[in-house]
Amino acid sequence: MKPIDTPDDQGLDAPASARQPAIGGAQRGTLIGIGIGPGDPDLITLKALKVLNAAPVLAYPAPDTGASLARAIVAPHLDGHHTEICIRMPMVTARFPAQEVYDWAAEEIAVHLDAGRDVVCLCEGDPFVYGSFSFLFARLVDRYPVEVVPGVSSITACAAVLGAPLATRNDVFSIVPGTLDMAALEAQLERVDAAAIIKVGRHLAKIRAVLTKLELMTNARYIERATMPAQNSMPLAEFVAESAPYFSMILVHKRGLAWN
Amino acid sequence: MKPIDTPDDQGLDAPASARQPAIGGAQRGTLIGIGIGPGDPDLITLKALKVLNAAPVLAYPAPDTGASLARAIVAPHLDGHHTEICIRMPMVTARFPAQEVYDWAAEEIAVHLDAGRDVVCLCEGDPFVYGSFSFLFARLVDRYPVEVVPGVSSITACAAVLGAPLATRNDVFSIVPGTLDMAALEAQLERVDAAAIIKVGRHLAKIRAVLTKLELMTNARYIERATMPAQNSMPLAEFVAESAPYFSMILVHKRGLAWN
Repeated sequence: MKPIDTPDDQGLDAPASARQPAIGGAQRGTLIGIGIGPGDPDLITLKALKVLNAAPVLAYPAPDTGASLARAIVAPHLDGHHTEICIRMPMVTARFPAQEVYDWAAEEIAVHLDAGRDVVCLCEGDPFVYGSFSFLFARLVDRYPVEVVPGVSSITACAAVLGAPLATRNDVFSIVPGTLDMAALEAQLERVDAAAIIKVGRHLAKIRAVLTKLELMTNARYIERATMPAQNSMPLAEFVAESAPYFSMILVHKRGLAWN
Repeated sequence: MKPIDTPDDQGLDAPASARQPAIGGAQRGTLIGIGIGPGDPDLITLKALKVLNAAPVLAYPAPDTGASLARAIVAPHLDGHHTEICIRMPMVTARFPAQEVYDWAAEEIAVHLDAGRDVVCLCEGDPFVYGSFSFLFARLVDRYPVEVVPGVSSITACAAVLGAPLATRNDVFSIVPGTLDMAALEAQLERVDAAAIIKVGRHLAKIRAVLTKLELMTNARYIERATMPAQNSMPLAEFVAESAPYFSMILVHKRGLAWN
């Protein structure tokens, strides 16, 4: 079992994992959350690949029924040696986060960690940018060594695909969930230079109304499934649907183009 | 010369590069900005590596004097075949952005593009997150095919190293430059759930004062040179220096831990 590189002890603020003693000398496994990027299998890092190939156990989120997108993204890189833990998450917004599912998954993972087996958990985009991995992390970080390999976030991937820099110079850039109510959404967008509006879904009409009120519709770009085969993008003004798929977001910069 | 994968034509909102006709049938080169990640050479993506190895010309930023950090990050992956363009940027804040340097660099790059040679430009972190690449992009995107390969941002790398999720659920997360004046900094931090304060440098005392006023000092973590050999981090309250190095930031979440 090859441990991944860990930073040197940084004193009081070292990652919790660095503070975990081996109990009774037993070598426990490490939970490693890896960012696998936004969808294109080539947007995974060398470090994530090394960690993935070295670990015996692979955990990943999946919907209630059907295939796991995270597993599909890394499928070209798998050689079949992993024991797999499929974490089926209810995708109904109202039930999120599904605490019982995280409790169950944490215990499934803990069985392997106790036996000294490293467990890699696949995270779409980056593990710590609105990812469900944070909830597994919270349940296990005080009991086991945990490491995180950052990944390419879907937000920067959307910017790359659109040819639209997110922010330059002294811009304030915000990530704003479309789930906020209209007043909160307006207040948030009002005072920033640029924003990514995530979790668009059924909130599209409300988001359109706020952007129109702020006279930002002409600066807003809609994009779905960035870097995936079904990638699609257009000016938000031309996107006529009433709702948007889960993997979509709106990018807006008040100067239109960030370099201006 | 192997072109990189380009997304299908997306209509009006296609990347500008997709709209560039070849002039008189001549095959012009493509400018490709690649995110090379925050510092650890293994935090580069497979896609960036493929693009890097396929292109004959390599451009990268460097300080006035001395070595280029961007080039040092990818050095383990270079095989010596590239023609190199070193873009020496004045690092004095007041002179940034150095328009003349971008003008010069754009023309140096254009010579190769006109001759049909692809040019890869190295970008620390992600090209479109406060990167100087945006200014090269702006100068060349209307004249040449330009592509961008997103990378791991230093912001998510800092979160990974600290074991501190940036945001969960319906959090509003902001990237706030420490260069803002005190009132603006306070107004920005007041209404978000979490923030990364970048460009700390000589603004450290002001940032401390604002975080203290907002009673956020105990939630603030300082980190410098994340994923690099000289990486260092601590609670901001324990960082006693009067200024911070260029590659540093402060992460703060109002709930302390994002999963709470």
